[in-house]
Amino acid sequence: MAINSPEGTRDLLPDEAKFWAHFRDTAFGIFARYGYQPIETPLFEQTDLFVRGIGQATDVVSKEMFTAISGENFKRVMEGGTIKAKSRLSLRPEGTAGVVRAVVQHDLVPQGAAPAKLMYAGPMFRAERPQKGRQRMFNQVGIECLGAEDPSVDAEGIIMLMRFYAAIGVPMDATRLLVNSMGCEQCRPKYREAVREYMNAHAEHMCEECMRRAEINPLRAFDCKNPGCAEVMEGAPKISDYLCDDCREHYQAVKTYLDGAGISYIEDPTLVRGLDYYTRTVFEVQVVEGMGSQSAIGGGGRYDKLAEIEGGRPTPGLGFALGFERMVLALEAAGTLADSPKRVDGYIACVDPSVRATAFDLVCAARDAGLSVEMDHQGKSLKSQFKMADKLGVRVVIVLGPDELAQGKARVRNMTTHAERLVDIAAAKRLLAQFGGNLVGGGAAPVSIDALFDAEGAE
Amino acid sequence: MAINSPEGTRDLLPDEAKFWAHFRDTAFGIFARYGYQPIETPLFEQTDLFVRGIGQATDVVSKEMFTAISGENFKRVMEGGTIKAKSRLSLRPEGTAGVVRAVVQHDLVPQGAAPAKLMYAGPMFRAERPQKGRQRMFNQVGIECLGAEDPSVDAEGIIMLMRFYAAIGVPMDATRLLVNSMGCEQCRPKYREAVREYMNAHAEHMCEECMRRAEINPLRAFDCKNPGCAEVMEGAPKISDYLCDDCREHYQAVKTYLDGAGISYIEDPTLVRGLDYYTRTVFEVQVVEGMGSQSAIGGGGRYDKLAEIEGGRPTPGLGFALGFERMVLALEAAGTLADSPKRVDGYIACVDPSVRATAFDLVCAARDAGLSVEMDHQGKSLKSQFKMADKLGVRVVIVLGPDELAQGKARVRNMTTHAERLVDIAAAKRLLAQFGGNLVGGGAAPVSIDALFDAEGAE
Repeated sequence: MAINSPEGTRDLLPDEAKFWAHFRDTAFGIFARYGYQPIETPLFEQTDLFVRGIGQATDVVSKEMFTAISGENFKRVMEGGTIKAKSRLSLRPEGTAGVVRAVVQHDLVPQGAAPAKLMYAGPMFRAERPQKGRQRMFNQVGIECLGAEDPSVDAEGIIMLMRFYAAIGVPMDATRLLVNSMGCEQCRPKYREAVREYMNAHAEHMCEECMRRAEINPLRAFDCKNPGCAEVMEGAPKISDYLCDDCREHYQAVKTYLDGAGISYIEDPTLVRGLDYYTRTVFEVQVVEGMGSQSAIGGGGRYDKLAEIEGGRPTPGLGFALGFERMVLALEAAGTLADSPKRVDGYIACVDPSVRATAFDLVCAARDAGLSVEMDHQGKSLKSQFKMADKLGVRVVIVLGPDELAQGKARVRNMTTHAERLVDIAAAKRLLAQFGGNLVGGGAAPVSIDALFDAEGAE
Repeated sequence: MAINSPEGTRDLLPDEAKFWAHFRDTAFGIFARYGYQPIETPLFEQTDLFVRGIGQATDVVSKEMFTAISGENFKRVMEGGTIKAKSRLSLRPEGTAGVVRAVVQHDLVPQGAAPAKLMYAGPMFRAERPQKGRQRMFNQVGIECLGAEDPSVDAEGIIMLMRFYAAIGVPMDATRLLVNSMGCEQCRPKYREAVREYMNAHAEHMCEECMRRAEINPLRAFDCKNPGCAEVMEGAPKISDYLCDDCREHYQAVKTYLDGAGISYIEDPTLVRGLDYYTRTVFEVQVVEGMGSQSAIGGGGRYDKLAEIEGGRPTPGLGFALGFERMVLALEAAGTLADSPKRVDGYIACVDPSVRATAFDLVCAARDAGLSVEMDHQGKSLKSQFKMADKLGVRVVIVLGPDELAQGKARVRNMTTHAERLVDIAAAKRLLAQFGGNLVGGGAAPVSIDALFDAEGAE
């Protein structure tokens, strides 16, 4: 019996895998202009890192993490033994904790240095109940800027995020950008207390989960989908009335920069984001319709205490992440998901097996010249080979037959015009070799497959 | 206390992360010419997939896999419960099993269709004892061709692998390509029996591990590093004397194609590769010196039975994988590891905070025109800002001061020639806007930072 991919995971088949590469490369290309450089951190970290950074009380850490455990350690645990803290590993549920860990570990922002601007792309893991737009393994692109608390960092982060959406094809009128400030360790505790008191005063209309959370993190109640809770929370105290002067000024400066850059946003004082580590600026981009409840396609915020929480020097930070799978759903809903172009230049068809060695040789020469060229590997009939060539969408088929080959010739058919010509194989190979020498490396072909038509010796 | 990255893992900091991207893109660019298309499979699979495909008796499966387990299932196991087979997950120790699983699951090679040519890049996981060139998480690029048993597939696979090494900078005279045929289910059992008998006859000179393995898979003894075993195994029967006619003919055809393409290789009848699934062609590329015992930088082979073992239709296959971290060691040893180029075009410096809003605005405009431009986010002095600009290696610094700004001007300094000019900010912005419109998207800048020098209004 065949084994399928694990629950909540899916394969990216070629079209989607190409789009993921395009998504990643587009994001990295734009973010590089803003000074961001790539980093790759391990896909698992010590569990304690997430417990400290994201917070034990969050759903992500308390319920949704995958443990990664070696066979040896698994055996030990099963036999009632314990494993060392540094061997307790979890698959990363998000990218920030690991990047901040790397910044601390490698001291990427020494005292007085410029901020470290880092970007990443790759899979994240959460053991949630799978549903549309919510998988157990999903791909994200994200950035982190460590070492600067200036509001210009927040603003340029939001600007480049919006530039990315425009570049990848999300219609700007189908999105809304929500912003808020969550305050800092000075002003947030008072606000949190005010929300808790408010919730306790309205406890009879709220769900048990929210009231249980009220003790640990009442702000989470703003995210509750329960209609009763939502109604109550609409009247809850607003963070904007509690911000300290520094936070208020910082938030104002972010908004002024955004206004200057012509970025539209909605201030949402109930936007609190799901993770414990955020301070001050938080933001989220939602698509307006077509995705049901999973409407957030990206977001992030400032986390000025996270590096300290992870054991580093005080290092202010800001980051965001955007999900690939959600973006695909959004683009599908908007009808702007582009097809990946097929790019196979030519096909070399064999009339019979006697010419295969020559075909292989010609295929090699064309590929070394940077062309994408295919031949048959299954002993198919000539008719089937033409069908394959058609399916690949090639522009040119070169037909090798024993009669023509005896004269050093091959028949070249233009698949668009159906015109055919005889070309001299040696001349075509000389032409290819002109480019082959410096192209054994990489890069695109400087020679078009159509040039084979014009090879010296064509009749 | 700070938490470090888990044992046996490492971060790819920007220089190395860029090289990994270059490595992957170079490989994908070359392989695409041979008709290969990208695929991304989950990073964990049902454990049974690896048990069936790679083999329970291999070190990889019996000792080196990481289990991925959700919090819920971990709790269940700890309480003495069991979990369903389809929830028993392992982080992938190699890429082939998952890709073949995806081909079977999505029926990517329907009856009569062309072969599926797939390529992948990403991390693999093995809970081995970490050592130089051997990590618990490492990156690989690989290809799989499913659906064709023709020797031309084997040959073009080897050719494109060697083309990749040349492209990435591995000196060809520092490598050797080993090839062998491991036969098929017709001829290999007889050979395996012959080796077992031979080992039993020389048991007193061999290690216990080998003799234990002799019962399960005697061919593994060819890989034993024990000098006694190595000496004995040199005299062992050769697979070449046991190949059936079909396998001999197939192997001969592969070699003929390689000869035709001018690829040098060494026939090594003791090359057996570590995994159970190989049949017929196997190959390995080694670097000749500088890497100690971890000299293999890539390899693969044919696996004509794997799709069936995984529950699919009979579907012949061929693949290879190459390790990124080993390659970096090889390039370092060869002295051909290129530095990643820094590419920051310009820096916009502020004389005092009053000009920051204008600086931010100009930075945004330059980035929208495709330039990589940086500004200060930390309230640094002008002198420090110039230091940062120098460190980033920018070609141009634009200095905004309140006096010049009052006249709509900015000072532009060429960091190479130290020449300075005053430019009109509005004119520079108009120039940038000419490109900005169609560049909000992505791609490289069509305008050079130096063009700012020539902006209309420069004095």
